[in-house]
Amino acid sequence: MTRIFDDPAEFAADAVAGFADLHAGLVRAVPGGVVRRSRPPGGKVAVVVGGGSGHYPAFMGLVGPGFADGAVVGNIFTSPSTAQAYSVGRLAQSGRGVVFTYGNYAGDVMNFGLAGERLEADGIPARQVVVTDDVASADASEGHRRRGIAGDFVVFKALAAAAERGLDLDGVVRAGEKANARTFTIGLAFSGCTFPGADTPHFTVPDGAMGLGLGIHGEPGLKDVPTMPAPAMARLLVDRLLAERPAGADGRAAVILNGLGSTKHEELFVLWAHVAPLLREAGLTLVAPEVGELVTSLDMGGVSLTVTWLDDELEELWLDPATTPAWRRGDTTGGDDTDVDQELADLTAEAVPVEGDAASREAAALVVAGLAAATAAVHEAEQELGRMDAVAGDGDHGRGMVRGLDHGLAAARQAADAGWGVQGVLTAAGDAWAEHAGGTSGVLWGAGLRAAGARLGNAGTPAAADVAAACRAYLDALGDLGKASLGDKTLLDAAGPFVDVLERATAEGASGGLGDAWRAAADVADRAAVATADLVPQVGRARPLAARSVGTPDPGAVSFALCVAAAVPAARH
Amino acid sequence: MTRIFDDPAEFAADAVAGFADLHAGLVRAVPGGVVRRSRPPGGKVAVVVGGGSGHYPAFMGLVGPGFADGAVVGNIFTSPSTAQAYSVGRLAQSGRGVVFTYGNYAGDVMNFGLAGERLEADGIPARQVVVTDDVASADASEGHRRRGIAGDFVVFKALAAAAERGLDLDGVVRAGEKANARTFTIGLAFSGCTFPGADTPHFTVPDGAMGLGLGIHGEPGLKDVPTMPAPAMARLLVDRLLAERPAGADGRAAVILNGLGSTKHEELFVLWAHVAPLLREAGLTLVAPEVGELVTSLDMGGVSLTVTWLDDELEELWLDPATTPAWRRGDTTGGDDTDVDQELADLTAEAVPVEGDAASREAAALVVAGLAAATAAVHEAEQELGRMDAVAGDGDHGRGMVRGLDHGLAAARQAADAGWGVQGVLTAAGDAWAEHAGGTSGVLWGAGLRAAGARLGNAGTPAAADVAAACRAYLDALGDLGKASLGDKTLLDAAGPFVDVLERATAEGASGGLGDAWRAAADVADRAAVATADLVPQVGRARPLAARSVGTPDPGAVSFALCVAAAVPAARH
Repeated sequence: MTRIFDDPAEFAADAVAGFADLHAGLVRAVPGGVVRRSRPPGGKVAVVVGGGSGHYPAFMGLVGPGFADGAVVGNIFTSPSTAQAYSVGRLAQSGRGVVFTYGNYAGDVMNFGLAGERLEADGIPARQVVVTDDVASADASEGHRRRGIAGDFVVFKALAAAAERGLDLDGVVRAGEKANARTFTIGLAFSGCTFPGADTPHFTVPDGAMGLGLGIHGEPGLKDVPTMPAPAMARLLVDRLLAERPAGADGRAAVILNGLGSTKHEELFVLWAHVAPLLREAGLTLVAPEVGELVTSLDMGGVSLTVTWLDDELEELWLDPATTPAWRRGDTTGGDDTDVDQELADLTAEAVPVEGDAASREAAALVVAGLAAATAAVHEAEQELGRMDAVAGDGDHGRGMVRGLDHGLAAARQAADAGWGVQGVLTAAGDAWAEHAGGTSGVLWGAGLRAAGARLGNAGTPAAADVAAACRAYLDALGDLGKASLGDKTLLDAAGPFVDVLERATAEGASGGLGDAWRAAADVADRAAVATADLVPQVGRARPLAARSVGTPDPGAVSFALCVAAAVPAARH
Repeated sequence: MTRIFDDPAEFAADAVAGFADLHAGLVRAVPGGVVRRSRPPGGKVAVVVGGGSGHYPAFMGLVGPGFADGAVVGNIFTSPSTAQAYSVGRLAQSGRGVVFTYGNYAGDVMNFGLAGERLEADGIPARQVVVTDDVASADASEGHRRRGIAGDFVVFKALAAAAERGLDLDGVVRAGEKANARTFTIGLAFSGCTFPGADTPHFTVPDGAMGLGLGIHGEPGLKDVPTMPAPAMARLLVDRLLAERPAGADGRAAVILNGLGSTKHEELFVLWAHVAPLLREAGLTLVAPEVGELVTSLDMGGVSLTVTWLDDELEELWLDPATTPAWRRGDTTGGDDTDVDQELADLTAEAVPVEGDAASREAAALVVAGLAAATAAVHEAEQELGRMDAVAGDGDHGRGMVRGLDHGLAAARQAADAGWGVQGVLTAAGDAWAEHAGGTSGVLWGAGLRAAGARLGNAGTPAAADVAAACRAYLDALGDLGKASLGDKTLLDAAGPFVDVLERATAEGASGGLGDAWRAAADVADRAAVATADLVPQVGRARPLAARSVGTPDPGAVSFALCVAAAVPAARH
C-alpha cells in the first residue's frame, strides 16, 4: 500500500515538488505540471504528455531532450484539468504548435481537448494523439475505443523523436498515429493498489487468480485466470499479442515488458527469459526492448507486454536518443534554455473579464451563497455518493465532488471579495472546481459554470430570462463536451427538464418571477433525477439527494441546482 | 508478493538469463554471475560486486563502464558460493588485481574472502572492501560490525570510478574504504517481502507500525515506531543520520533516498520534498542526489536514506560518468571488448586432481554411499531443521541443507561414474554443496569436504588413520573459516570430540579397526551434539537427529557423520 504522504489530497502536488527539486537540471515545475529546461535552437513542435498521477515514470519522468516537452500532472488516477493542460501546453510550446498525447480515458480526452481549443484560440495550433493500445479493453474492430496503457511509452517516444527531428505538426501527428495504430498491449494483474491515506485497496484481484487485461485503474479485463508459472504466463501474453499482428508487419518490433509497481525487476527478467524466445520463434526481431517500470499503477502487482510493429521510420524514431529523469537512450546534445518566465507572466495576465459593477457584485454574492449551500449539501452526501458510484465506477465520486466544490467555493469567495462580477465569480469557481475535482465530471461542471458566466457578464442585475439563458448555456456546454443527449442516463436527464421549464416560466413572464419559475423547474428536475436514478436500481438512493434541489429561489441558486443535478451519478460511465 | 517464477529454486539463475539477454550489449552471463562487455584499453583494477539476489539493481544491474566489472549473483538473500565469486573474479580481472566489494554479512565475507584466497593462489592480487553503512545494526563505536545496505551503491561507485581512472589496487581500495567510512544509512520498513513460491512473508512489520532500522532481510532494527506523515518520517531519518556527521565533514554530501521495492517513486518524491530542505537547513550541499530504487528487497515496503560525506576526491568519484543497465550518469567512452572465452576455457581446464586408481575408486563408492545416507536423513529432517532454525535464524536451514546435499550427492555420483578417486569425489561434492546450499553453512561444508579430499588423495585404500586425519582436516577448515572454537555452540562442538576420539582410536590401532573407532567417535559426537543442543533450550529437539550419527562404519560415512554433525544448527548465528 501507499505509505508515504502528507495530506493525501496534495499527494500529486507534493510529488511534483520533490521531483522538480531533484531533477532541476532537466525539468521545471510550472502550474499544471512540469516542462523541460531546454529544447533545440529555433523551436520545435511541443509534445505534451499527461494524465493522472500514480503511473510514474509516466508522465513527468519522461520530460527532457528527445522526449516530452512537458507533462501535465493530474491527481492520482484522475485526469488533469483543462486549465492544467492549457497551462503546460502554453509554457511548453515554442512556436511550432503543440501535440497533446495521453491514454484514451474520457476525462483526459475532454480536458486535453478543451485545452487544445484554448490554445487554438490563442493562435497556437494544437492537436491530439490518443493512445489506444490495450487489446483487452475492446475488440480489434473497435480499436479506437481501447484504453491506453504501457503503449503510451512507444507512442510518446515516436511523437517526441519526430518533433525533435524538426518535423512539422502534421508530420509529428502522423508519426504518432502510425505508432499508435501499430502498438498493442496486454496486461496481467496480480494484485490491486491502495491510494495514499486509504484503508482498503482501490481494487483487488481474487486469491489464486490473475486478471488478464485488468486495467491499470482496476477497469474490467477479459477474465480471471488461475496463477501459473512464468513459462505459461509468457505464452499467454505473447499469444494474445501475436493474434493481432497487423498485415504487412515485417517482424521488427519494439517490445516493452512493463512492471506495474510491486512486481520487481528480477521477476520481470525471469519472465523476459521466457517471453523473448517465444517472440523470436514467431519471427520477430526485437529492437532495443525495454524491461522495467515504464507505466506503473502505484503499488499494483502485475505486468504488461507491449509490441509495436516497426517500419523504417518508426524504428529510427524508437532508437533516437533521449535524456529524461527516468529514462535515457544514447546521448542527447545540448539545447537552448526555455524562457518560461515571460510566458508564465503572459499567461497570468490573460483572463476573462472579471470586474463587476455594483449590481453584478450584488448578484455575485448570491452566486456565492448558492455555491455555499451546494457545498454543504454535497458534504453531507459525500459517503452516499461514493457508495452509489462504487456500483458503476471507482467510488470516488463523493470525494471528487467535495474537493471540487470546496475549491470552487473558496475561489468564488476570493473573487467576490475582490469585487468581481457574476461572470468573474462563476469562472473562478468553475476553473477551481474543474482543477480539483478532476476527472470527467469535474471538467463538465467547470466548463458549464464558465459558459453560464459568459452569458451573464459582469454588469447589471441578471433578469429572470438571463438566468434561464445562462442555464441553457451551462446545459449546452455539458452536452457538447460530454457528447451525451437526453435519455443517456447522465446528469442531463435532470438538468435538461430543469432548463426547459425555467425557460418557459421566465419567457411567459410568470407572475411569481424567478422564484416561482425556479421552484417549478426544480420540481421537474427532481422528478427527472429520481426517474433517472430509478433506471439504475442500485442508485435509487439518489432520491433524497435529488430532492434537495427543490426550493431555492435565489439567482445564485443557479449554481446550487446545477451542482446538485450534476451530483446524480447514475450513468457517468 | 513475488508472483513471477518458474522453479523457485532457479529464480536467481532465470533472472540472470533474462537480464543478460536483455542487456547483451553491456554484460555477459558467466558461471557465477555477469561481467561487463568492455573495459578501458590496457586493463584496470577489476571491481566485483555481489551478494544474494532480490536486491536489484544491486548487484548485476550495476555492471558496465564506470561501474562494476562483474557481479556475483547468489540465490535470493543468500551469499553466492566461493566458486561463484572466484569464477566472476577470474573472468572480470584484466591484469591489475580484483577488489571484491559487498555488504557486511557473514556468508558474503566468508565466500568472497575464500574466493580472494583462490585468486591470490592463482597469482591474481585480490582485496576486500566490506560495506558497513547501516547505522541501525550496531553502535558507532562498533562501526565495523554494521551491515551493508543502500550505502553499497556509493561505496561501489567510488571504487569503480577510482579503478576506471586507472588507480592501482591500493589506491582503489583506499578510495573505497574512505567512502565506506563516510557513508551512513538508516532504513524505515513498512512491510515485509515474500519469496518466490512462498505462501507467507519472509518477515512482517506489525500493522500500524514501521520498523526503524529493520534490515533488508528482516534483521532486527532499532525499534518499531507508529506510522507517521511524510514530514515526520523525513525528520526521523534525517536526524538519525546527522547525529553521526563525522568530524571534518564540510557539508558536501552524496545523498540517496532509496525505495525498497513496493514503495514507489512518487512516494519517494513526496518524501524527498521534505528530506531535501531539512538537509539543506543543516548546512549540507546535496551533490547529485539520487531518489529511486538502488538496493531493493524483493517487494518489501520501505525506504532508506543514505548520506556520504564527500571530500574533493570522493566528490569527483561520485560525479564520474557510468553506464550500466540500471543506472547512468553522464557519457562514458568506448572500450575494448573483454575476451572472456579464453579465460573461461582456462578456468575450466584448472581443477584439483580427480582421476582415481582402482582402490581409490572403490573407496569413492563408499563416500557416495555415505553421502546418499546423509542426504536421505536430512531430507527426512528438513522440516524439523527449518523449525529449529526459525528460533534463531530465518528458518531456511533445512531447505539449504537439502538443496546442498541433493546437488552434492548428484555431483559425487557423476564424479564416481567418471572414475574419479576419493579426493575428486569429495571435492566435486563439496563444491556443489557450497554452491547450492548457499549462505554461511554451505561454504563451511564445501570447504571441509574439499580439505578432507585433499588429505585422502586419489590413490589407494585410505587407512583408518588417514580417515581420521581427513576428518581433522575437515574440522580445521571449518574452524579456520568459521572463526569459531570449541564451546562456541557451533557444529564444532560435536565434530571436535568426534575427531578427537577417532584419532585416538585409530592411532592406538584398536583391534576393531575403523569400524569400532568410528562407532566410538560417533557416540561421543552424538552426546556432544545433544549437549550442545541442550545449551539452547529451543533446539533440544535436535537430539533425535544427532543420534542418527551413531553406528555407520564405512569410510564413506565420514561424510555422513560430518554432515549430520553439521546439521545441528544450534549456534549458526
